[in-house]
Amino acid sequence: MTAQNGEARCIVVDWGTTSFRAFLTDDDGAILDSGETADGIGKIGREDFEPLLMRNLEAWLRKWSALPVVCLGMITSRSGWIELPYVPCPADLDALAQGAHQTSLPNGSPLVFLTGLTDRARWPYPDVMRGEETQIAGFGLERDATVVLPGTHSKWARVKDGRITGFQTFVTGEIFALLSQHSFIARSAGQPSSAPVWDAFERGLSFAADERLDAGAFLSMIFSARTGMLAGQLAPPEITDYVSGLVIGCEFRQAREQGWFDPGTAIGIVGNDGLNERYKRAADAFGLRVIDGGEEAAIRGALAILNAVQGASVHAA
Amino acid sequence: MTAQNGEARCIVVDWGTTSFRAFLTDDDGAILDSGETADGIGKIGREDFEPLLMRNLEAWLRKWSALPVVCLGMITSRSGWIELPYVPCPADLDALAQGAHQTSLPNGSPLVFLTGLTDRARWPYPDVMRGEETQIAGFGLERDATVVLPGTHSKWARVKDGRITGFQTFVTGEIFALLSQHSFIARSAGQPSSAPVWDAFERGLSFAADERLDAGAFLSMIFSARTGMLAGQLAPPEITDYVSGLVIGCEFRQAREQGWFDPGTAIGIVGNDGLNERYKRAADAFGLRVIDGGEEAAIRGALAILNAVQGASVHAA
Repeated sequence: MTAQNGEARCIVVDWGTTSFRAFLTDDDGAILDSGETADGIGKIGREDFEPLLMRNLEAWLRKWSALPVVCLGMITSRSGWIELPYVPCPADLDALAQGAHQTSLPNGSPLVFLTGLTDRARWPYPDVMRGEETQIAGFGLERDATVVLPGTHSKWARVKDGRITGFQTFVTGEIFALLSQHSFIARSAGQPSSAPVWDAFERGLSFAADERLDAGAFLSMIFSARTGMLAGQLAPPEITDYVSGLVIGCEFRQAREQGWFDPGTAIGIVGNDGLNERYKRAADAFGLRVIDGGEEAAIRGALAILNAVQGASVHAA
Repeated sequence: MTAQNGEARCIVVDWGTTSFRAFLTDDDGAILDSGETADGIGKIGREDFEPLLMRNLEAWLRKWSALPVVCLGMITSRSGWIELPYVPCPADLDALAQGAHQTSLPNGSPLVFLTGLTDRARWPYPDVMRGEETQIAGFGLERDATVVLPGTHSKWARVKDGRITGFQTFVTGEIFALLSQHSFIARSAGQPSSAPVWDAFERGLSFAADERLDAGAFLSMIFSARTGMLAGQLAPPEITDYVSGLVIGCEFRQAREQGWFDPGTAIGIVGNDGLNERYKRAADAFGLRVIDGGEEAAIRGALAILNAVQGASVHAA
């Protein structure tokens, strides 16, 4: 992308398992420029992280000199550049800032690694996130809310009194991908259509929300993708979106059972891509109002944590 | 295999999507000889079913002449040799026999196709089975019981007053295969060990049975395969069996929520392979006594339905 006018203040790098996404931002968190490559941490040896980062950011750093660079995501996991321990819940901005690790790049840029969050109260093992805590910080910790972050491993989190007090992971996106790509459903489904078949999606949702379904019926409900077809009630082009609605609906059903929301309240949806629209429809099916967390929550959150890390010094950088 | 001594009475063919299994049986359902090939219906054109059957059974038919041949399984589905409509629940032996289709082979052998069962009361769509109803018939319809048939798509069925009154499918085996072969779990797990890691399996089971887990937490519980490893509580060689215990345990948990059993009662387990031992341990974890349905339930069931189809004429064949 071409840089827009404006004073660059910081570079935010969302560095995950399969992709490298960088954003040049101004003081208000507006994106001046951005770029994405397939340099996910999965393919990169430890000694190659810094040269790769310098190469990917070269044009921006040449133009703007020693801008602070904030890295978040799996880059601070065991297989990343530097492993940072999780900050425990409850955590406010200062706690997230204290978990960050500050160093510098060869050109003198401050380099700040943000770390993840753990909810030790979760059973049977402490739950973890790495990257989503920054999105939640960007959504804002000043108002109490339940926030859902759709994804391969969706997170439901609670914000209360300026802190992230707890969260829970649901492997919804991965289960959907497995079912739609490798299962009996993959074999039955038609070619994926260019646009979602919303009618089929809504049907899956409504079944998942129906009180006739016991909340615990997930392993059984999935089979309705086959029985619906055998009954002539589901056509091959509908199956994938039907299953998407069913699986996301089951996530909401399970999240409700786990106490993440009560009908009639509002939840934040913080995410990306096509999933937000699906999660908004699911929220509607479960009687929830939606606070739209927007697309750039990670950037706003990274800046907020950076502020807490560096204080006024950032503005001088 | 080499035929044992004994008077052959019937050939039972369990013809599924991926395999062809044939059993030469005597009057009591004892197996005199058997064979298995990879001639599942998935690879076979409609006009090739009969020549293939004749070829696979050639030695037995040459020795024993025009023995009756009973075919069950997906061979009577839409993609099989002949599509037979499902018999509705509740169904006794006579109802299953009435759903069968009788014809003959070129050598004069009576050829009987057994059909599947549907439970129209299931929501959102009628549930279906094809092959398992014959196993249940072999388990026996004379005593009231809940019967579980472990598998890719496990079935829980109720036998009452000599009839199969209803059933429900859980896609447990398929979900386990997807998770263990294609998911984040596949990437974390060590090489599969030669023997099950029962300790890890039992841990997964006990978590699924624990009252701290809400029954509806399936999408979340699966993530414990990762968080357990991050917490140093699960080693790579344990993960696959831990997930197996978790998924089978969730099936039992969900089956209980759906009303398939009460703790302290007995259930029949009718199945095959390594799954029976896993399901017996799961039954134990859920406080159930087990009636072992044995390995040859399909054969006993096929003979029982054949009796109902042919009456005394079979004995004259």
